[in-house]
Amino acid sequence: MTDFQLTIVSTGGTIEKTYEATSGALSNRETVLDHMLAQLRTPDLRINRIRLMNKDSLEMTPEDHQLIARSAHQVAADCDGVMVVHGTDRLAESGESTIAMGTPAAPIVFTGAMRPFELRDTDALQNLTEALLAVRLLEPGVYVAMHNRVLAFPGVVKDRTAGTFGRAGQSIG
Amino acid sequence: MTDFQLTIVSTGGTIEKTYEATSGALSNRETVLDHMLAQLRTPDLRINRIRLMNKDSLEMTPEDHQLIARSAHQVAADCDGVMVVHGTDRLAESGESTIAMGTPAAPIVFTGAMRPFELRDTDALQNLTEALLAVRLLEPGVYVAMHNRVLAFPGVVKDRTAGTFGRAGQSIG
Amino acid sequence: MTDFQLTIVSTGGTIEKTYEATSGALSNRETVLDHMLAQLRTPDLRINRIRLMNKDSLEMTPEDHQLIARSAHQVAADCDGVMVVHGTDRLAESGESTIAMGTPAAPIVFTGAMRPFELRDTDALQNLTEALLAVRLLEPGVYVAMHNRVLAFPGVVKDRTAGTFGRAGQSIG
Amino acid sequence: MTDFQLTIVSTGGTIEKTYEATSGALSNRETVLDHMLAQLRTPDLRINRIRLMNKDSLEMTPEDHQLIARSAHQVAADCDGVMVVHGTDRLAESGESTIAMGTPAAPIVFTGAMRPFELRDTDALQNLTEALLAVRLLEPGVYVAMHNRVLAFPGVVKDRTAGTFGRAGQSIG
Repeated sequence: MTDFQLTIVSTGGTIEKTYEATSGALSNRETVLDHMLAQLRTPDLRINRIRLMNKDSLEMTPEDHQLIARSAHQVAADCDGVMVVHGTDRLAESGESTIAMGTPAAPIVFTGAMRPFELRDTDALQNLTEALLAVRLLEPGVYVAMHNRVLAFPGVVKDRTAGTFGRAGQSIG
Repeated sequence: MTDFQLTIVSTGGTIEKTYEATSGALSNRETVLDHMLAQLRTPDLRINRIRLMNKDSLEMTPEDHQLIARSAHQVAADCDGVMVVHGTDRLAESGESTIAMGTPAAPIVFTGAMRPFELRDTDALQNLTEALLAVRLLEPGVYVAMHNRVLAFPGVVKDRTAGTFGRAGQSIG
Repeated sequence: MTDFQLTIVSTGGTIEKTYEATSGALSNRETVLDHMLAQLRTPDLRINRIRLMNKDSLEMTPEDHQLIARSAHQVAADCDGVMVVHGTDRLAESGESTIAMGTPAAPIVFTGAMRPFELRDTDALQNLTEALLAVRLLEPGVYVAMHNRVLAFPGVVKDRTAGTFGRAGQSIG
Repeated sequence: MTDFQLTIVSTGGTIEKTYEATSGALSNRETVLDHMLAQLRTPDLRINRIRLMNKDSLEMTPEDHQLIARSAHQVAADCDGVMVVHGTDRLAESGESTIAMGTPAAPIVFTGAMRPFELRDTDALQNLTEALLAVRLLEPGVYVAMHNRVLAFPGVVKDRTAGTFGRAGQSIG
């Protein structure tokens, strides 16, 4: 059994927001992915980290989505799988941009969280755990893994009422 | 998107051990799976729970392994996937007994933990999260999901030194 | 040993802020004091809860400070001790208003937090634990208990740089 | 405001027990007090640590109780307060031995826990927080601080049914 070579592209999002006592606000200042990864056991996973940006995805420009898509395809050519950590608000835009560039050389799995990792009650570790497993089990393609589900692009949308992702045109329970 | 019908067969193991202040020991008294499941977001998962036994797997008899294998096959005929929560010491015996009965009607994924859920530093939630996702992505078969890996029976063994599972005859990093 | 009759006056503050996924912001919507209290063992403490307001203390008016001071004195007449949960930004104003009304019939201990209870890394439980013990050990008076220290009003100020409280005119280490 | 000079004498006990995956048991192997202290904010506390022993108190000999009492008195002469971390089963014996040697030069506060710090649901941090505050507020003497209460020796007993401490001859609520 050889190690699995994973590339993690981090772009920010709620999952990485941290609290500043001075302002009393949550914002994207530093990446907390390493703290999250340290809580998981991944004995044969070799991780290469690329800190592409650290933004609330509501602030992403069309150029940002293109940059993310292009970067994901590029790194997919040199590893066994790619995980992209992303804000949920515009995750679907980046996912669609990525699949629009064709099928990648390795699976690209987007994930994020509805509540920051810094919170006691967070979905960050669950989603990260799911994305890290999904990237090892899926065929090359572009996906979002979150809340015990994997959905393939194109056609994925955020369901703001349910606070999760689903397929366009379908209601989510 | 219709709901995924999951059957959880719980048999005990380290993952479910709880602390008793009187004796100062950890033991299998009550199932804590419901507490674990309550920490995860699984919007379209329908869970049917079967509490088959609650044992440290070191105390399992050959009859127990057969009972677990038979029960897993039976419930697999009526749902989309089966997760079996099991002690790691004899998990491989139950897994081999299960695959020896043939390919099941739905994927059967075993999981457990090296450290009880009750501990602050535990692998229980990670493994549970992984098993709950793996059962949705895999073809019918018998597997163990743990520590960011999925291995298919037959041929899986516990690596006691590394504290995880691997394939027979191979070293694990 | 008879029970200790404690009255808790809650006014909001960072300690009680909760996260809303829709807006992505922390705000004072519901009191989380009961969740915090449920994590502590207080076998002979009888608690009477008064939800006076739920405000970020930066939004408190002079009337609010007077109301808090008057309420604390009133309830102190009918119990063994009073704990006031308060935002740290204007905690000193309410404390000074309270001691300006004279020595209360029972100890009144203010507390709060620099980081909300909802955060994984929070000082909320520590400060709450300290205030709940201090109120049982102190003479009647008005105090703040936080960060392993108890300070008596008048003369307490927030040290915004150090993120804690100290005595006016003194630097805090 | 000058710093408070605290000496911590650690002797083991449930509070410091850690889990070993190989044996599946909790035992006193390494001190976890530093991990606990790292979770608290104590800006003006100067701590001197003395690791006297690391035992389940059920295994303590009469000589151990005398050693603990003598050590606590000795260090009390050179600091502002002493906290002794101790197993609850024989905590009262060590406390009685300590007060039998006379009133110490500084307050000596014993504490411990019914459930190890390693457990998700533990009273360790609460009790530690209480002892660390009590030692700053009390007059010289020998005490136990635990579960929102401070009791002075002599005359303190463990109430095994209630899982806490009380005064000899009194029932605890």
